[in-house]
Amino acid sequence: MLNILLKGGDVLCADGQIRQTDIAVSGSVITQLGRIDEPAEQIIDCRDKLIIPGFVNTHTHAAMTLFRSYADDMMLMDWLQKKIWPAEENLTAEDIYWGTQLAIAEMLKTGTTCFADMYFFMPEVARAVAESGIRAVLARGMAGIAPTANQALAESENFYNEWHNAANGRITVMLGPHAPYTCPPDFIKKVTALATKLGAQIHIHLSETAGEVADCQKQYGKSPIALMNELGIFDHGALAAHCVHLSPEDIAIMKEKQVRVAHNPGSNMKLASGVAPVPDLLAAGICVSLGTDGAASNNNSDMLEELRLAALLHKVHRLDPLAIPAKTAVDMATVQGAAALGLDTITGKLATFYKADITIFDRQEPHWHPRHDSLSLLTYAASSRDVHTVIVDGNILLDNRRLTTIDEERLLAETDRRGMRLVNK
Amino acid sequence: MLNILLKGGDVLCADGQIRQTDIAVSGSVITQLGRIDEPAEQIIDCRDKLIIPGFVNTHTHAAMTLFRSYADDMMLMDWLQKKIWPAEENLTAEDIYWGTQLAIAEMLKTGTTCFADMYFFMPEVARAVAESGIRAVLARGMAGIAPTANQALAESENFYNEWHNAANGRITVMLGPHAPYTCPPDFIKKVTALATKLGAQIHIHLSETAGEVADCQKQYGKSPIALMNELGIFDHGALAAHCVHLSPEDIAIMKEKQVRVAHNPGSNMKLASGVAPVPDLLAAGICVSLGTDGAASNNNSDMLEELRLAALLHKVHRLDPLAIPAKTAVDMATVQGAAALGLDTITGKLATFYKADITIFDRQEPHWHPRHDSLSLLTYAASSRDVHTVIVDGNILLDNRRLTTIDEERLLAETDRRGMRLVNK
Repeated sequence: MLNILLKGGDVLCADGQIRQTDIAVSGSVITQLGRIDEPAEQIIDCRDKLIIPGFVNTHTHAAMTLFRSYADDMMLMDWLQKKIWPAEENLTAEDIYWGTQLAIAEMLKTGTTCFADMYFFMPEVARAVAESGIRAVLARGMAGIAPTANQALAESENFYNEWHNAANGRITVMLGPHAPYTCPPDFIKKVTALATKLGAQIHIHLSETAGEVADCQKQYGKSPIALMNELGIFDHGALAAHCVHLSPEDIAIMKEKQVRVAHNPGSNMKLASGVAPVPDLLAAGICVSLGTDGAASNNNSDMLEELRLAALLHKVHRLDPLAIPAKTAVDMATVQGAAALGLDTITGKLATFYKADITIFDRQEPHWHPRHDSLSLLTYAASSRDVHTVIVDGNILLDNRRLTTIDEERLLAETDRRGMRLVNK
Repeated sequence: MLNILLKGGDVLCADGQIRQTDIAVSGSVITQLGRIDEPAEQIIDCRDKLIIPGFVNTHTHAAMTLFRSYADDMMLMDWLQKKIWPAEENLTAEDIYWGTQLAIAEMLKTGTTCFADMYFFMPEVARAVAESGIRAVLARGMAGIAPTANQALAESENFYNEWHNAANGRITVMLGPHAPYTCPPDFIKKVTALATKLGAQIHIHLSETAGEVADCQKQYGKSPIALMNELGIFDHGALAAHCVHLSPEDIAIMKEKQVRVAHNPGSNMKLASGVAPVPDLLAAGICVSLGTDGAASNNNSDMLEELRLAALLHKVHRLDPLAIPAKTAVDMATVQGAAALGLDTITGKLATFYKADITIFDRQEPHWHPRHDSLSLLTYAASSRDVHTVIVDGNILLDNRRLTTIDEERLLAETDRRGMRLVNK
């Protein structure tokens, strides 16, 4: 017997077309699309609903939800030095668990089924992922200039060995050298040596601000992309967050080394980092996915908002209303997200034998009417609050807007208390 | 006895501070703020809720909801000539009523209590406004180059006489010359003569695209702003939509003539019109409000989205994270909106003897936690779907997320049917 049968929904199929079809789920995977009349343990009536692959959030620092709304509308260095870094000093392992769980609650309620995280106390992050049922790609953030640099390397290795492919394969682990400006070449070499030893991929911040690119040019005579390429960081499979300030040479390197980009339009706009050359990256055939970044710089974990910002920002920046059309934006948030995380053989599309990572939108609200084009409605009109049901790895984690694996009331009480403590020490 | 008592909410007060206070409503106005223990016909428990002045949407074409998702990701002239204008030819008076009602339903559900509209069949728009209970400033759009130009003038005069200050004062009427590129100087002179005769204010599109400004320079040797100033359009009180492409001289004229701006970031981004110099306008002391524009170019009627886009877009465009901070964005969406519509003595703030135009946000969802700063949360993290209750002119129009004056089921059936008919003729 099937575990779950999604009956009668409008489905965004792997060929990019939306058509009415049923979807069968057995165990963790989609076993059939088409007209299905087999019995199932659970049948979900999806008439009038839109079914898409779950959103993939390819760059965040989930536990930073605890700093949401603590410090906004500030210059980057003031924000980091006077507010965020001192508050982060107070974080405990338990804080990380609860802050991550808060981000996961938000993500599930807004249709995200997989996320890539870079932070610390990562076993606590993995515990939150394992318990909640979401899929995640986790990296222990490492700053080579910090006194804890070697400890971070050791923790990364232990974390990889303990958690890579854990939780029914829902968790994979990458190495997370924070950025070229916090990781000098000698440290990057240690990271690539560890990546080679483990067979691990890399998650890194690259070329987020003009200042960091200028500093890198001054110090090393080359761009962060060129420097990292020279140090071999792209030889292991690399996920590069931001990539705002790129030269044509940088883009050529990224294409050659198949660097996958996590574009964070909301964070780049709010922190005034600049506008990433996404149309150029896409034209070069580079994989561009979307991330929310941490909630201190966004300030939520809503991938539909990022999808919409990506579709809107590049149009006005290039003065081209055809830049990043609806379908491209949806792809960036789904199938390209899976590719960016090296998971495109198992998730990111609704197809047979893919993992059942599925988001179902209710289309009752006025903004879904009239319904000339559902992908346009999703991209330009919908609300992430229209998300009705979310399935990850074959399990229903959001059921008619209610979280099934997270005690939301306790979660909010814990995170309110911890958030206040962190900034009032 | 009081009509409505809002008890225990966190209120965005007229001084810009958020503090816990009760609000009393009698008839159409707020009669008291503070600790209130009088009896009331209806007491709303607002503990843990955020209460703000209702959003004021200062530029839309409400009935264009019927074309939502019909034509996107196109060049402006293709979009107008091949899609929107032919479909608009099919619009009937009844279509306008239902399309407007759809926009009003969206607006009320997302916290907007007042909007400024420019379209045609305006008595139908007024009927929708009167029946729904929302507040509106209505203008019959007039294109001087159209064969119906003189008819539009006559309709505008009749409409003004019939509806200005109607519906308990909820409806006011402006004159709506569409734009300099559709209204030659001779026609503009007729409009200003009518404005003088009626004492009516003006709602007009100005300097939305670079092309229209260049054409105006070529044809008249001056900018649209300078041309309209010369023709006296700013001498009656003017609401100017878009104002994307402005010279320092334009800004000086606007300041001198107290032109009020309706900034439409979502529409300007999606149509790739450009980025309005909002920080410069604000620095010059010009009133800048926010509008959604019509749903064919947005594609929804969500003012919280515009507020957020305004806060994000100008930061990245100016590379200044301090551009348009949260409080400024909220002001643009509320008190500046009222000022832009000439209604700032009656609405736009929560103060004694102001109209009870009030939006109440629920703060249960994870994205409202932890709660370091509620204005930041509203601006950067909240969803318009957190709107719980909306009061206009002392009447509860949205009650715990349910519309009280609009039959939503019938509305959606009507607009679906009409939307499909319009594009399939």
